Amino acid sequence: MNLLQNFNKAFESKARLGIMSVLMVNDEVSFNMLKELLSLTDGNLATHLRALEEASYISFKKEFIGRKPSTVYSVTDEGKQAFNEHLNELEKFIKGS
Amino acid sequence: MNLLQNFNKAFESKARLGIMSVLMVNDEVSFNMLKELLSLTDGNLATHLRALEEASYISFKKEFIGRKPSTVYSVTDEGKQAFNEHLNELEKFIKGS
Repeated sequence: MNLLQNFNKAFESKARLGIMSVLMVNDEVSFNMLKELLSLTDGNLATHLRALEEASYISFKKEFIGRKPSTVYSVTDEGKQAFNEHLNELEKFIKGS
Repeated sequence: MNLLQNFNKAFESKARLGIMSVLMVNDEVSFNMLKELLSLTDGNLATHLRALEEASYISFKKEFIGRKPSTVYSVTDEGKQAFNEHLNELEKFIKGS
């Protein structure tokens, strides 16, 4: 029985799975776009993004769209690898269930 | 892009996935066996079990093993269905990632 030994707690919540899946298929996504896509509050999204950033799974840069400051996020190579490993573990778990 | 619309938050954590997967393949499992299998603390396991019970996904009964009281847990039909739906959603999500 697979008890998720390689389950990565950095991706444990629905929000984290959602954030990573959006960033995996886009070069970079703004905070506001993530908020809209994932229907999260500012505070909730910021907390999840900070944790993923501290884990070096995502990076961000500040830029201006017109005169408006905007933060855009991207997945790092390390994040891509860790997330793929996590999905593989979930897939093995599902198959074993 | 699948954004986990049918993701069931009752199964959001590694512990909840572990508990359900053990109960799905056993008629009933004791608190101590679950604790050992999943390497959880008493408090942590009790919290997760209470939440799953309140969601009617698992049930429990108290019995004696020799003179020792023991609580055993089982998955309910509702729990089986909800967990299978959750795993299907995760599988679709993984395939879409």
